[in-house]
Amino acid sequence: MIKVQFAARPERWGTYQAPLDAALAEAGLQVDLRQDHPAAEVDYVIYAPNSDLQDFTPYTGCKAVLSLWAGVEKITGNTTLTQPLCRMVDPGLTAGMVEWVTGHVLRYHLDIDRSLATQDRWEPVVPPLAQERPVTVLGLGALGAACATALAQLGFPVTGWSRSAKTLATITCAHGSDGLQHALQQAQILVLLLPDTPATENTLNAETLALMPRGARIINPGRGPLIDDTALLSALNTQQIAHATLDVFRQEPLPQEHPYWAHPQVTVTPHIAAETRPLTAAQMIAKNIQRSETGLPLLNQVNRDLGY
Amino acid sequence: MIKVQFAARPERWGTYQAPLDAALAEAGLQVDLRQDHPAAEVDYVIYAPNSDLQDFTPYTGCKAVLSLWAGVEKITGNTTLTQPLCRMVDPGLTAGMVEWVTGHVLRYHLDIDRSLATQDRWEPVVPPLAQERPVTVLGLGALGAACATALAQLGFPVTGWSRSAKTLATITCAHGSDGLQHALQQAQILVLLLPDTPATENTLNAETLALMPRGARIINPGRGPLIDDTALLSALNTQQIAHATLDVFRQEPLPQEHPYWAHPQVTVTPHIAAETRPLTAAQMIAKNIQRSETGLPLLNQVNRDLGY
Repeated sequence: MIKVQFAARPERWGTYQAPLDAALAEAGLQVDLRQDHPAAEVDYVIYAPNSDLQDFTPYTGCKAVLSLWAGVEKITGNTTLTQPLCRMVDPGLTAGMVEWVTGHVLRYHLDIDRSLATQDRWEPVVPPLAQERPVTVLGLGALGAACATALAQLGFPVTGWSRSAKTLATITCAHGSDGLQHALQQAQILVLLLPDTPATENTLNAETLALMPRGARIINPGRGPLIDDTALLSALNTQQIAHATLDVFRQEPLPQEHPYWAHPQVTVTPHIAAETRPLTAAQMIAKNIQRSETGLPLLNQVNRDLGY
Repeated sequence: MIKVQFAARPERWGTYQAPLDAALAEAGLQVDLRQDHPAAEVDYVIYAPNSDLQDFTPYTGCKAVLSLWAGVEKITGNTTLTQPLCRMVDPGLTAGMVEWVTGHVLRYHLDIDRSLATQDRWEPVVPPLAQERPVTVLGLGALGAACATALAQLGFPVTGWSRSAKTLATITCAHGSDGLQHALQQAQILVLLLPDTPATENTLNAETLALMPRGARIINPGRGPLIDDTALLSALNTQQIAHATLDVFRQEPLPQEHPYWAHPQVTVTPHIAAETRPLTAAQMIAKNIQRSETGLPLLNQVNRDLGY
């Protein structure tokens, strides 16, 4: 019987217990999964960096600490944590992002808001086909590439932009600053999936917003600082930008007095596009325990020198 | 110069002229496209059955009449129409249906209505992944099969049902009355794409609605008579069905006094899911003229005995 301790905020136990039990059983593992075991008897710790467990010294038999979070910057400096540490790489996060982005692109494409609002008139307005609706995705990392590919699969002509040159089978790829200008000029719908770096801050500003086709729509599930908020509000007010759906912000929760909340051309969602998902995260945890128990190297083990 | 007459309601000329000119030019055809030519000089007629043109006798040189409509039942009995007649098979109609169905399935899956309505609270509720959301499609004809396949591509576990047995690569296929019961029991989201026949009338009735999981959602872009409207309204009122998005009705436009209009759990759309699209329809017309001009047989030529 493998002893596994679940060390996260207590309210997460209800979310994770059933998916973990199911995934561990499906992996053929005989596991005793609890929130409390005698520390010296624990074989594996499933770990959220915000849990109360901060001293790993008593976990003398622990073969690995398996993080539920992708970001492990809060614990790489913990000197009591001498056990192998693995970060979470969750295919569910990518899948969820593709679903969220595709859903909101189709919402804009089909003008679903109008269908919901004008619930009293029979006025058929047939939208153009996806093949007539250019979509641009800024950022072609794992998330951007997956979203761009899914949108192309539905028929949208997709332009993808990244800082350095990339090639994707069904996407028109652009890069560099000339490429960015071209990508924005195409974008009837723009999806922001760039990382948050000094180089990407205010990628959407007064100048770049003006390059977009009049009446374009913006979807930001990436990072808050990608947008100059004042410039976006101006562009919304002049109808240069028809609508924006924003999931991430410079300050979260978005402050109650922020003009985005009340703006009729803005949809605010509370940072829900990219979340670790219990079902797929549990499968990744089970897979790693199974590998360890059968003598295979752990997946996604953190290099303490690099910090990830 | 090939002389082509556009014979449809005058208001359709504005919609079709540019797509037709572009498609004909792209097919390498030298065409004089107008709403009026001397009848005896016309090579091809592009035709909507509700146009004023009903006497084809003067069109002595006409090589084919190319319908803009899929349904040609209004003109197959016209004895003056002795020229070859082709019906419209529009890939854009299928593409548009896939986009509309995928958009509304994702709207339900992501609970986008709630995002739009609760525009004042930061309350993250992360939806399950598509892989945890069973979707059922009733009807596996060209439209149903295309929608089911697109939904499976996004990760939904899709059950498809048809009267006779079918096989589709990524879909769990069911058939017959036992199969229908199973398909409905799975359906957190149900899409209706059955044809309108005596056998399919009231497929959704009090009994079959009760088989669905409590809180299921229904999308009907198929045909109005598939649903027993009284039974659906009852199921909505007891919350057995959480919401319905209806694009087709027994009477269209949906009468102003119909309870669907004001029902908070119903979204009415005005029969926009399946429409011939000018862009792709123009491409089909151009392809057929090109085939005819190069001696190839016409596509989708109507068999006057069968009537389609």
